[in-house]
Amino acid sequence: MFGATLHVAPGRSEWRGHQLLQRAGMVRQVAQGIFSYLPLGWRTVRKIQDVLRAEMTAVGGQEVSLPVVNPADLWQRSGRYFGIGPELARFADRRGRDLVLAMTHEEIVTDLARTEIASYRDLPRLVYQIQTKFRDDARPRAGLIRVREFLMKDAYSFDVDDAGLAARYDAMYRAYQRIFARCGVPVTAVASDVGMMGGHLAHEFMYLTPIGEDTLLLCDACGYAANREAAAFRKPAAPAGTSGGPVEVATPDATTIEALTAALGIPAERTAKALFVAVDRERPDGTVHAEYVVAVVRGDMELNEVKLANLVHAGEVRPMTPDEIARIGAVAGYGSPVGVAGATVVVDDLVATAPGLVAGANRAGYHLLDVVAGRDYTADHVGDIVAARAGDPCVRCGEPLRTTRGVEAGQIFKLGTRYADALGAGYLDVDGRRKPLVMGCYGIGVGRLLGCAAEEHHDGDGLRLPITIAPYQVHLCPVDASAADLADSLYRTLTDAGVEVLYDDRDERAGVKFADADVIGLPLRLTIGRRSLARGGVELRERAGGDAELVPTGDVPRAVRERIAALHRRIADRLPA
Amino acid sequence: MFGATLHVAPGRSEWRGHQLLQRAGMVRQVAQGIFSYLPLGWRTVRKIQDVLRAEMTAVGGQEVSLPVVNPADLWQRSGRYFGIGPELARFADRRGRDLVLAMTHEEIVTDLARTEIASYRDLPRLVYQIQTKFRDDARPRAGLIRVREFLMKDAYSFDVDDAGLAARYDAMYRAYQRIFARCGVPVTAVASDVGMMGGHLAHEFMYLTPIGEDTLLLCDACGYAANREAAAFRKPAAPAGTSGGPVEVATPDATTIEALTAALGIPAERTAKALFVAVDRERPDGTVHAEYVVAVVRGDMELNEVKLANLVHAGEVRPMTPDEIARIGAVAGYGSPVGVAGATVVVDDLVATAPGLVAGANRAGYHLLDVVAGRDYTADHVGDIVAARAGDPCVRCGEPLRTTRGVEAGQIFKLGTRYADALGAGYLDVDGRRKPLVMGCYGIGVGRLLGCAAEEHHDGDGLRLPITIAPYQVHLCPVDASAADLADSLYRTLTDAGVEVLYDDRDERAGVKFADADVIGLPLRLTIGRRSLARGGVELRERAGGDAELVPTGDVPRAVRERIAALHRRIADRLPA
Repeated sequence: MFGATLHVAPGRSEWRGHQLLQRAGMVRQVAQGIFSYLPLGWRTVRKIQDVLRAEMTAVGGQEVSLPVVNPADLWQRSGRYFGIGPELARFADRRGRDLVLAMTHEEIVTDLARTEIASYRDLPRLVYQIQTKFRDDARPRAGLIRVREFLMKDAYSFDVDDAGLAARYDAMYRAYQRIFARCGVPVTAVASDVGMMGGHLAHEFMYLTPIGEDTLLLCDACGYAANREAAAFRKPAAPAGTSGGPVEVATPDATTIEALTAALGIPAERTAKALFVAVDRERPDGTVHAEYVVAVVRGDMELNEVKLANLVHAGEVRPMTPDEIARIGAVAGYGSPVGVAGATVVVDDLVATAPGLVAGANRAGYHLLDVVAGRDYTADHVGDIVAARAGDPCVRCGEPLRTTRGVEAGQIFKLGTRYADALGAGYLDVDGRRKPLVMGCYGIGVGRLLGCAAEEHHDGDGLRLPITIAPYQVHLCPVDASAADLADSLYRTLTDAGVEVLYDDRDERAGVKFADADVIGLPLRLTIGRRSLARGGVELRERAGGDAELVPTGDVPRAVRERIAALHRRIADRLPA
Repeated sequence: MFGATLHVAPGRSEWRGHQLLQRAGMVRQVAQGIFSYLPLGWRTVRKIQDVLRAEMTAVGGQEVSLPVVNPADLWQRSGRYFGIGPELARFADRRGRDLVLAMTHEEIVTDLARTEIASYRDLPRLVYQIQTKFRDDARPRAGLIRVREFLMKDAYSFDVDDAGLAARYDAMYRAYQRIFARCGVPVTAVASDVGMMGGHLAHEFMYLTPIGEDTLLLCDACGYAANREAAAFRKPAAPAGTSGGPVEVATPDATTIEALTAALGIPAERTAKALFVAVDRERPDGTVHAEYVVAVVRGDMELNEVKLANLVHAGEVRPMTPDEIARIGAVAGYGSPVGVAGATVVVDDLVATAPGLVAGANRAGYHLLDVVAGRDYTADHVGDIVAARAGDPCVRCGEPLRTTRGVEAGQIFKLGTRYADALGAGYLDVDGRRKPLVMGCYGIGVGRLLGCAAEEHHDGDGLRLPITIAPYQVHLCPVDASAADLADSLYRTLTDAGVEVLYDDRDERAGVKFADADVIGLPLRLTIGRRSLARGGVELRERAGGDAELVPTGDVPRAVRERIAALHRRIADRLPA
């Protein structure tokens, strides 16, 4: 076996599963966010791929392979070449033509559908691939969870209309639940932000763990679940208030909501705070210009930057610099949209419907009482731009939401016609008219899935991946010279019977072999030695727990096959339909 | 099925096989040298992968996966970051760190072996992967044969010594012959240049075709075979001659060997010609400096630039500019190494041992008689730097060589310790001493193999890939409505029996279905229609030729399985041991 087990994992991580993947000799870091898979790790990945292929085939998926290196022009035509920041790796080829490393394949597959799909008779179609991708993440971390180069199962569906897309989306939703269940990764499906994909509906399949980097809002009463980036909640009615103003009042040193409410003796619900952010937009000629945005939310709430970015059709927003704030006529600490120029004003719906609120006067040391949107300043966009928090009432049933943390293990999107429109991918409908393809896309990071499985399935001694994805089924462990011949013969018998055996035929002490077997953690272990032979057989033990069973030598193949079948059954019985 | 068959292939190519891969809906070009694989093409690739995995496993190979994006520093330490030109795609990440797209994985795998292999007890090891690579070829062409992004099966061996490497090399040599035979691609193994890999022995497995871009020299008498880049031949004895000189003679307008021999009335064998080339070497700080080389070969022979580049340890050479030629004191048309300064002089062994030859005087209109290497100028390197040609005597047996053309379908290299030395990858030997790993590397381009197979297996109507790699085994073709029910039931029966069936259940005319079946060219076709049913059954036909057989309906599964087994046997019977 190429790949050494390690007593101590390199680096530090709170992801114990990842530390064990390294200690078991499964993966090695090459550079930040870039990994090599050793034979044991790669066998595990190939098992995961088998699950992915089986479930994609079951819903009519056809496997393709799309290139990693993409011509930039397709990404320019979709707009993402400009909308996506430095995480999109770009380079020029030897003739100076711009290329990108694909982080996802909407452009390529839509362009392909343009040539391969002619009419409604060619629809629906579902294609998928399992292919390397690169995203130049600013902060790769958490082992295989957040990397730069990754293997991804990405699927794309093409339908005649929204009803077809809905059917495909539902089928993929169920397929995803089966995939995660088969790989032993419990997930919760939550509504999510569509982000750079565009489109109008998305779900994330979240593996819940306290060390996950995403925050989720869940309603235990009705089952509502959403990523914080997308979570809605039932907003309180606007409190009664006056609206005679605006009237300027001196508020020295009141540069925070806390200081302001203390100074004026009013609750934070009666205030509006302004946040000054910018969107850097790239022009087709490659130059960048900043668009300024003033976001207005009630003083007792927090801005949700993702909701804001979506409202202004931006990939991300950044804080404005002091210079930029001054340039639009605003004053930090005493800011509001009143009197600013050269900025887009985005107002949370709760602020838009509120009677007069206290807001900054854009003059150091002063605020305005009774400021009303629409009268005292113009809102360019009104919408929900605040973050849901634990305790906020559920948008569906009104019961309080709770928060938890998780990792996005997969995501599905209804894209609609965004890419088909941009890249001219249409079909001739039964009525003889040309219409755009209605698309969905569906992704699972293969390495990330392994990372989640390792985090879910380990104990203090090592990994214990489920039989569906463990690299081998049985660890065959002769512990002294007397066991060698029997081990050789068992290895042959078992492999001939189709059992996947990792045979530790090294000349090592039993303690070394057991420690390695523990850290690799195959589902079953066969231990053979003087002691077991004296008792008349071979010791068979499950990694996940339970007593060791002494199996008579001739009975080992049957006993092993039965255990393997039982382990598979345990997972199959819990699969969603 | 996603992917349309085409009446006419896009673009022009003398590679008929590639045109048919496009017409069959297997591949589509995305950009120059960058392709997408549609479901039919990708199934074929997956079949080829199965063959590769089986044969690699049979010789002890363990599958790994190494990253496409590599940190540049490993390539700097091996020296290839500087030695390889623009075909190595380079870019900086968002933090300005230099990265490259791997075109091969010696650096990564050697660095991995450094951490995974500790002692002679961990050796030998053979690892392989099937992974995407990128090489920014200046002239992508010939469909899948010469591309920029490609899938490659690359394997790397680690041994304690040269004898171990030789054993591994021989095993891989035989495995490669089996792989090509199983995929239906006849190959000839030829000695080849080691090129940018370094090392000291290499073989290429060439698919012979008149439209191949490589020229090979073959000896029908003794079996010697080599790529022109590496081909040796038995050089003639140096003719007798005077050596009193050098004596300057006027040779107006004699700027070619032809004109010179005519002017002086001597044979070309009595002349030496000088070729002025430069090597652009990149310094560690990123700047480039040109090293000048004067290559001297006999007037009747041609310089082999690859042999020359190897002798001066360069990736490639380029012609010197007129300015550069003047700078070293030489005169184009009347050039020689006599009197030049600031250049490396490389002399073909035949020139080095010759008595006086006529050479340029580095003065316009003049040559020198009786120039002798070592006396009249200094040779920095002496070696074989001329190209073998058809008719030259075989280096082994002296019989005349012949030339033919081919495509490199795979290549194997003895690397020795080049990479282990550069990257510090060693092992502790049984004698307690630390020694460098002795490595070999072994590559097959998966897409290129498909390109060769398509070129070898087609006729005027379409592809006819062998059963080992054809995307499906059987094309099921009901040609009228009366056949639909029987086709449905046959499809289920056959797939249940493990037969891979492509079922054309479209509502199309028989002619359309037959044309598609021809161009896709699956090994077997089942045709069902009113006519065949009236005759009592289903028509079974082999794509590669032979009469159609009328099979009674109930007998179809047996007949199909027998044909499949026979087709497999036909290939297995011809496999090398």
